[in-house]
Amino acid sequence: MLTSDDLDQDMLHELRETAQQLRVDSVRASAAASSGHPTSSMSAADLIAVLLARHLRYDFADPGAPGNDHLIFSKGHASPLLYAMLRAVGAIGEEELLGYRTAGSPLEGHPTPRLPWVDVATGSLGQGLPIGVGLAITGKYLDRLPYRVWVLCGDSELAEGSIWEAAEQAGHSGLDNLIVIVDVNRLGQRGPTRHGWDTGAYAARFRAFGWHALEVDGHDVAAVDRAFGEAASHSGGPAVILARTRKGRGVAAVEDREGLHGKPLPDADEAIRELGGIRDIRVSPAPPAPAPAVARASAAVAWRPPAFEPGSMVATRTAFGQALAALGDARPEVVVLDGEVSDSTRTEFFAQAHPDRFFQFYIAEQQMVAAAIGMQVRGWIPFAATFAAFFTRAYDFIRMAAVSRASIRLCGSHAGVAIGQDGPSQMALEDLAALRAVYGSTVLCPCDANQAAWLAGAMADLPGVSYLRTSRGDTPVIYEPGERFLIGGSRVLRSGPDDKVTLVAAGVTVHEALAAADLLAEDGIPARVVDAYSVKPVDVLTLRAAARETAGIVTVEDHWPEGGLGDAVLSALTVDGGVLPSVRKLAVRSMPGSATPAEQLRMAGIDTGAIATAAAELVTGHRA
Amino acid sequence: MLTSDDLDQDMLHELRETAQQLRVDSVRASAAASSGHPTSSMSAADLIAVLLARHLRYDFADPGAPGNDHLIFSKGHASPLLYAMLRAVGAIGEEELLGYRTAGSPLEGHPTPRLPWVDVATGSLGQGLPIGVGLAITGKYLDRLPYRVWVLCGDSELAEGSIWEAAEQAGHSGLDNLIVIVDVNRLGQRGPTRHGWDTGAYAARFRAFGWHALEVDGHDVAAVDRAFGEAASHSGGPAVILARTRKGRGVAAVEDREGLHGKPLPDADEAIRELGGIRDIRVSPAPPAPAPAVARASAAVAWRPPAFEPGSMVATRTAFGQALAALGDARPEVVVLDGEVSDSTRTEFFAQAHPDRFFQFYIAEQQMVAAAIGMQVRGWIPFAATFAAFFTRAYDFIRMAAVSRASIRLCGSHAGVAIGQDGPSQMALEDLAALRAVYGSTVLCPCDANQAAWLAGAMADLPGVSYLRTSRGDTPVIYEPGERFLIGGSRVLRSGPDDKVTLVAAGVTVHEALAAADLLAEDGIPARVVDAYSVKPVDVLTLRAAARETAGIVTVEDHWPEGGLGDAVLSALTVDGGVLPSVRKLAVRSMPGSATPAEQLRMAGIDTGAIATAAAELVTGHRA
Repeated sequence: MLTSDDLDQDMLHELRETAQQLRVDSVRASAAASSGHPTSSMSAADLIAVLLARHLRYDFADPGAPGNDHLIFSKGHASPLLYAMLRAVGAIGEEELLGYRTAGSPLEGHPTPRLPWVDVATGSLGQGLPIGVGLAITGKYLDRLPYRVWVLCGDSELAEGSIWEAAEQAGHSGLDNLIVIVDVNRLGQRGPTRHGWDTGAYAARFRAFGWHALEVDGHDVAAVDRAFGEAASHSGGPAVILARTRKGRGVAAVEDREGLHGKPLPDADEAIRELGGIRDIRVSPAPPAPAPAVARASAAVAWRPPAFEPGSMVATRTAFGQALAALGDARPEVVVLDGEVSDSTRTEFFAQAHPDRFFQFYIAEQQMVAAAIGMQVRGWIPFAATFAAFFTRAYDFIRMAAVSRASIRLCGSHAGVAIGQDGPSQMALEDLAALRAVYGSTVLCPCDANQAAWLAGAMADLPGVSYLRTSRGDTPVIYEPGERFLIGGSRVLRSGPDDKVTLVAAGVTVHEALAAADLLAEDGIPARVVDAYSVKPVDVLTLRAAARETAGIVTVEDHWPEGGLGDAVLSALTVDGGVLPSVRKLAVRSMPGSATPAEQLRMAGIDTGAIATAAAELVTGHRA
Repeated sequence: MLTSDDLDQDMLHELRETAQQLRVDSVRASAAASSGHPTSSMSAADLIAVLLARHLRYDFADPGAPGNDHLIFSKGHASPLLYAMLRAVGAIGEEELLGYRTAGSPLEGHPTPRLPWVDVATGSLGQGLPIGVGLAITGKYLDRLPYRVWVLCGDSELAEGSIWEAAEQAGHSGLDNLIVIVDVNRLGQRGPTRHGWDTGAYAARFRAFGWHALEVDGHDVAAVDRAFGEAASHSGGPAVILARTRKGRGVAAVEDREGLHGKPLPDADEAIRELGGIRDIRVSPAPPAPAPAVARASAAVAWRPPAFEPGSMVATRTAFGQALAALGDARPEVVVLDGEVSDSTRTEFFAQAHPDRFFQFYIAEQQMVAAAIGMQVRGWIPFAATFAAFFTRAYDFIRMAAVSRASIRLCGSHAGVAIGQDGPSQMALEDLAALRAVYGSTVLCPCDANQAAWLAGAMADLPGVSYLRTSRGDTPVIYEPGERFLIGGSRVLRSGPDDKVTLVAAGVTVHEALAAADLLAEDGIPARVVDAYSVKPVDVLTLRAAARETAGIVTVEDHWPEGGLGDAVLSALTVDGGVLPSVRKLAVRSMPGSATPAEQLRMAGIDTGAIATAAAELVTGHRA
């Protein structure tokens, strides 16, 4: 590769012309779509032209090549620039470019991995950088390959806390394979940003977090080239280039003007003329660094889940942790991410067994989930764990993981009021609702140790976002070691030809339901008990059979009434729009405080007595 | 108040003794509860002793006094220290202290406003500081009172991005009434923190964000006193005291040892002896600065919602924005918070009308919601608005707002696939599920401008977390100006004695349902149409009547199938555990891309044609 000293006038001209082409194509794509963000693309065109022609090492014909650099548009609304770039390298053609934002086109309003050159979806600002940190960790500590991770950020998104979680993590992890380019065009959506063109303000912040920071005129291609070269060769830590730019650069009618965010140019034809017209420059980036393909074990590798003796008392979180450690023996792609609670979630067992595949993110749940998304880009199998309640902190990242078609595994411990004394701040009572409402997600809620262990292993091969809810307290082991549990299945724990009512439970409430069935049996009411460990997908056939064969269904969950197990059951019963049975939904309906686990379950009305009472009422048709 | 030069040996002794009392009481409370965080309390005992005796201005007999300082334990797990402090000032007695963490006690595992001296719930780390920023903004720019806001943080929680959103906001807003004390005890939950005792690392970060930072030995009461004095008198910006401390300070068996987080001391009696035994020191903090009570207008003040002409086309977000501006005329306590998208959410109308009550948080949704929580502590009526999708970023804060018994109003615009070309990153498709699963929440989804305007006004007087979902595109105005809409109500838009099926919709799908009813009428199938604008609480009576009086119900929502309107309807029909009717749930079941709004509704199967087909199938009993 040329050094910047070699940048002669021809090359400077070529870079400027490439930038103009990127601008023109951004304008054209947005004009064709009658929507989009051309002005936010135009500010960064010189930056991307220089990156593409002089610094990126990437084979666009082979986007999966292990040595390829990674480029993330954290400012995903600059998608016209990304697509203009793809035309410049010959990855897409004219027709595809001008199909931007139309139905069926993979050139969506914001980038998604429907395009093979896009690693992850962006568009929710502040996510691309923490995901890039995950990718850089992957390159340095897992793949151990020389690829670099380039992230294009907007200045507005530097207000997001997730950016500073990433800054801290990257500085602390010494990620000198990470180079962040900030397009400081000083204008946000509705007006000026907080710091305008004060790149020094941003530089001071990044430096405080241990970064190498450079300030540059983002329209001076020679200066940009020098800065990129310096950033890429900086060792020991991450680098950031703070580039002063002008939004809408190159077209006087829009350049550096407020009120034009996210709008096509008022006169595209005139703008294209002003930018020098349509060009067909083809840019050939440098090839990727030589890198061996990383061998991945097949999904069929056998693993041996830990065995827990039926009748013993074991917390599902403990079983999860032990299972993860065992899974790590069989599956070298399994990696584990901690939010500084590994002693609680029990990922500490994995940390002890596989310290090289265990990553500490401290109390930064957004960065933890983002890193998991970054790691799976390169084929690793990440499990991220914290208290179930604290995944709410990363909910936007989980939502976007689905848009990224990312396969990540989340384990939330300490679910529900059953945790007892710690009180509501530590109790996940909305996790089932939140995780069910993620596209393509799997939501699992085991009630015993052998089940938790098996499901943890099954998650390794699940596509999409999967979630395992574990409990703090010990619960009886009721299944045999090695028993298999299908995703989308359930276990009918009690049933008989005369069942009058069905109790559907998951997690800790399974044990309450079993005890309730005993009470009901004493009263002459045979009750079926269903362990609905797979909350999504839920076992529709078993539930519909119960609806046909018993007089009613009682659902019971350690969760708010909205969006959890009860709603999943109700929804399953409507799959074909048929007539539904009597259903009674037990859930947590008042704000808990501190109390013992048993008191909590009783006060919430989800314990043995409450279940038995509700079931008896449903059968007899009147309230006790 | 004494200056620190006046700290004589007697005073120093008294401060140290007070700190020991706080430690002893933390140990006692945790021992009585057999749980809790004594070691995390002991590290900060000297800090709190000095604060209480020498710097806090607070009348514990009158926690609502407008001039009171505010003290937030952002490290909420140090609740034993907080409760020990309350005993030291005589606010609670021995018996209450020792009832810590028992059922019914307001001394919960983590602080909540069940205690009148607690402004907001903490326990999810990283929240106390951004909420404190909201309170400091309130003091400086709304109340204009001389109270100070003190926030006690742990060092672990400085990894949370929300802390740096707060640091940026506080620095930029010049909050010299905000003083943060960081208890740098170097130990997190499962081991050392990232920076250990390197208070310089933290100081550099805070200084980069414009803070005055002081480093101090947190067990040297004279030095702490000087630091607090300097921080409190610093003007122009916020101050932070980074105090090096030792976890478990004062008891050799636990001091600065790993593996003891969140555990009572192994030998409480011995620890109490080592700490010098039980004391009964009574501390009398300085009185609050004189401050007039802030007059609040009564909730009954009439306001005049903007009027939109039936038949015209207006986006509900526009109506919301105009309503908010009008509400601001009538209600001087209404304040509005923006996440740098006021042109999209249309809070710009309020900003123009009431610039002194409009606050810009840039793209920092966690800080925005946290500030709303802080503002309502002092009786203000905050409305925070951003794209509905981006409230997922602040979901943990919203969850905790419910634990805080906070009344905050959230408006999310650009809901659902109906936004069209921008693609899934910008589409809220999980917001109804997430917001329904917040304790005590209200979830509103208006379909027309007059309804949106009315509901925006109604939210001002709603307790708890309320949420209004607005749409990007223009929709027909179907209600008369000034029509009233009850929370928990609905509108039956079509009905007749021969209705065969009921269509339940909310927001944009109401208009699709009305058109579907027209189609169905042509086919001889009279359909009832229910506008279920109040998704939570949902109108149980109207829905149950529909279930009785028609052959089935079709629900249709611009949302994933999980946890939204359909589940709310199903749940309503089970309120008494009765037999349910036929229900068919239409919702978004595949990942959208870019397309026009009409194409999106069609591809998602929630448009007129899809509704009519589903309803006809339900009535005729077979699929088309």
